[in-house]
Amino acid sequence: MGGMTGNSSALDPAVAARLKRNADGLVPAVAQQYDTGEVLMLGWMDDEALHRTLTTGRCTYWSRSRQEYWVKGDTSGHVQHVKSVALDCDGDTILVKVDQEGPACHTGTRTCFDADVLLSAP
Amino acid sequence: MGGMTGNSSALDPAVAARLKRNADGLVPAVAQQYDTGEVLMLGWMDDEALHRTLTTGRCTYWSRSRQEYWVKGDTSGHVQHVKSVALDCDGDTILVKVDQEGPACHTGTRTCFDADVLLSAP
Repeated sequence: MGGMTGNSSALDPAVAARLKRNADGLVPAVAQQYDTGEVLMLGWMDDEALHRTLTTGRCTYWSRSRQEYWVKGDTSGHVQHVKSVALDCDGDTILVKVDQEGPACHTGTRTCFDADVLLSAP
Repeated sequence: MGGMTGNSSALDPAVAARLKRNADGLVPAVAQQYDTGEVLMLGWMDDEALHRTLTTGRCTYWSRSRQEYWVKGDTSGHVQHVKSVALDCDGDTILVKVDQEGPACHTGTRTCFDADVLLSAP
């Protein structure tokens, strides 16, 4: 299980009731630069990460590799300031519009999708 | 398991080697309108769905609920014409830029993220 369960999180119960989590209790969260529209990265949130993202103004994920909460930018300085948060129609994906400081990707590129382009139409 | 395994798909083996799939053999795929930057929806692809997306010009997902390939628009008419495809730095997320005909969401809204806004900064 990723992080806390819905029941032990402070997430608004009305929101928690709409969330559809995977077997690990997580929901994919797409981070998008609010003004340019760039898709920056995809992370994972449990109820508590979503709660913190909604209430702290800083995008917070659940790190599957480290099994801990991860406030984007705490280590790198590449903070994501939260502008808006929406659930999709099924409640199984989160879209967070952010203002990204510096590169979003740990490789140093602006987005995580810059380096491995498989197809680009002419 | 979602759909075929990597070994039985015609996906370029060099791409298949970079894909990191979940326990069901699937990778999340973010569909974005190529010109406006709107994040339209998130679907799931296995190797074969990615192969078809790369080679047919039509966005193709694996439907987890129906357990079958799903060419977006085949039923609804709301086709996604593929403009570009990229993997992220970890190979565990796909970004597909598309030209979306009509609404992307089965509810009739332009994107799947239009109806359930949890937070919107002033």
